[in-house]
Amino acid sequence: MTARARRTVDLRHTDPSDVSLQEALEALADPVRRSILRVLAGEPDFTRACGGFDLPVSKATASHHFSVLRASGLLEQIDQGPRRLNRLRRAEFDARFPGLLALVLTEDEPTETTS
Amino acid sequence: MTARARRTVDLRHTDPSDVSLQEALEALADPVRRSILRVLAGEPDFTRACGGFDLPVSKATASHHFSVLRASGLLEQIDQGPRRLNRLRRAEFDARFPGLLALVLTEDEPTETTS
Repeated sequence: MTARARRTVDLRHTDPSDVSLQEALEALADPVRRSILRVLAGEPDFTRACGGFDLPVSKATASHHFSVLRASGLLEQIDQGPRRLNRLRRAEFDARFPGLLALVLTEDEPTETTS
Repeated sequence: MTARARRTVDLRHTDPSDVSLQEALEALADPVRRSILRVLAGEPDFTRACGGFDLPVSKATASHHFSVLRASGLLEQIDQGPRRLNRLRRAEFDARFPGLLALVLTEDEPTETTS
């Protein structure tokens, strides 16, 4: 929890209750970002590191996607040594925008694991 | 209904069942387009003409917004003489993306009538 507390200071997170619908829709209107969320939804919190995704984009672009997801209240990140671990903020985001995340998670588009 | 049938041929409409989540999110990720949908949700079908919206954009931009809404399965339009009348495809869009339109219609952003 010490590492988590430190990271919360270093990384800018946004509480879903402070996210506008415009920001949420913009964050979700990207297939790579939606694929990240679907991967996280299928795993325990804080087990998948940023470097552990198989994304069809550059490292810099991937970093931007993680940043957008954090800023739109969809993602919480903590650093564990050299790894940045991720958690989908499912319950909080659901409370703010009921039904929206469910559409993303049930989308029948290719994901990392089913392509 | 004759006018309606004719218009369906002239104007390209997309059935909501043929719309991807990506297209839906992109269409909704615009505040002007969402304001159009909120106005239509509060009125009977095919009563509001395109020219009857008080939008903060040029006529050409407004025309583009209506086109995007049509192409994403959110809007049906018919011509009645010189007026192009609009209907929000609420039930069909709800069936395709449950809960998504409700988020837009309950959004607490300024609309034409409550600014």
